[in-house]
Amino acid sequence: MTITAEQVKELREKTGVGLMECKSALQEARGDMEAAIAVLRKRGLASVAKKAGRETKEGLIGTYVHNGKIGVMVEVNCETDFVARNAEFQTLVKDIAMQIAASDPRYVRREEVSEETLASEKDIYRVQARSTGKPDDVLDKIVAGRMEKFFAEVCLLEQPFVKNPDISVKDHVAGHIQKMGENIHVRRFVRYRIGD
Amino acid sequence: MTITAEQVKELREKTGVGLMECKSALQEARGDMEAAIAVLRKRGLASVAKKAGRETKEGLIGTYVHNGKIGVMVEVNCETDFVARNAEFQTLVKDIAMQIAASDPRYVRREEVSEETLASEKDIYRVQARSTGKPDDVLDKIVAGRMEKFFAEVCLLEQPFVKNPDISVKDHVAGHIQKMGENIHVRRFVRYRIGD
Repeated sequence: MTITAEQVKELREKTGVGLMECKSALQEARGDMEAAIAVLRKRGLASVAKKAGRETKEGLIGTYVHNGKIGVMVEVNCETDFVARNAEFQTLVKDIAMQIAASDPRYVRREEVSEETLASEKDIYRVQARSTGKPDDVLDKIVAGRMEKFFAEVCLLEQPFVKNPDISVKDHVAGHIQKMGENIHVRRFVRYRIGD
Repeated sequence: MTITAEQVKELREKTGVGLMECKSALQEARGDMEAAIAVLRKRGLASVAKKAGRETKEGLIGTYVHNGKIGVMVEVNCETDFVARNAEFQTLVKDIAMQIAASDPRYVRREEVSEETLASEKDIYRVQARSTGKPDDVLDKIVAGRMEKFFAEVCLLEQPFVKNPDISVKDHVAGHIQKMGENIHVRRFVRYRIGD
């Protein structure tokens, strides 16, 4: 079993254990990283390894709570801490959190919608469209149009921006990317409603 | 296919559609609630059904963000809005959010730990214990003790309360249950760290 220097380095970063021990643990685990961590822990060398790898992204975590009953947390990444501390960037993050509280998206972007959900939505729209008696050759077009509406309803980045519904959230973010000269990435969010 | 009045009522609450339509949709869906919602949507009767059932629980959503880099959101339920608006309850929720930010639990309570994780932890502790040369008959006891330590590390309610490490978070919550005369339930939390 050949263990690469890359693997040894990754295990070392994850556990803080010496290189030779990491190599031997990886050999014992036949290259499986998780198993190698378990090997080191069994040898008493690595403590419960909470350490993730070095953080490679900057950004800001924003929250918004409405009346204590609806809460949102969102992570927005940028390239430097300089931008993360910028007041305009902080306002952007706050606005995105408020957007999520108000508009209840289910996804950040359409790529996150599962194949299963896509198929089920398309099926529903097709049956609805067929019931109107429209000819078959326009059904596909109708379904495609309804899917775009679906994405605009459930995907944060495609929703109309609550503070300026003429543009999408994506457009609003794009404006900040241009203004600040750094890439900005809405990474993840979570929205709680009491009792949901 | 017999559809119960209960099922009809549940579908009506979920969709706001009339009773007779709900009953016929349930019959078509052979009693499957999700399928019946799809039937109603195909008939154009139910819009994308975001409405959950009536909220049965009160409580508060709390957040805590440390330096913009670590964020926590937690839902704590109680029985009445009266308690949810109580300042002491609100402090409790804030303290729990700070606890999560500081101590990084993975679960609310030990019942949430998967069988797989339990087995893997036990295995690691058993091998560690065996390597000390201790006799077999005390290994179980050692492993059980290590598991308790594991729970106290990864389960929010079993962690030492950061503001008073002599008691657990569970004890701290129990004190408030007694004081306020209402059940209090830490339901869920999420913790983000930038770049994790």
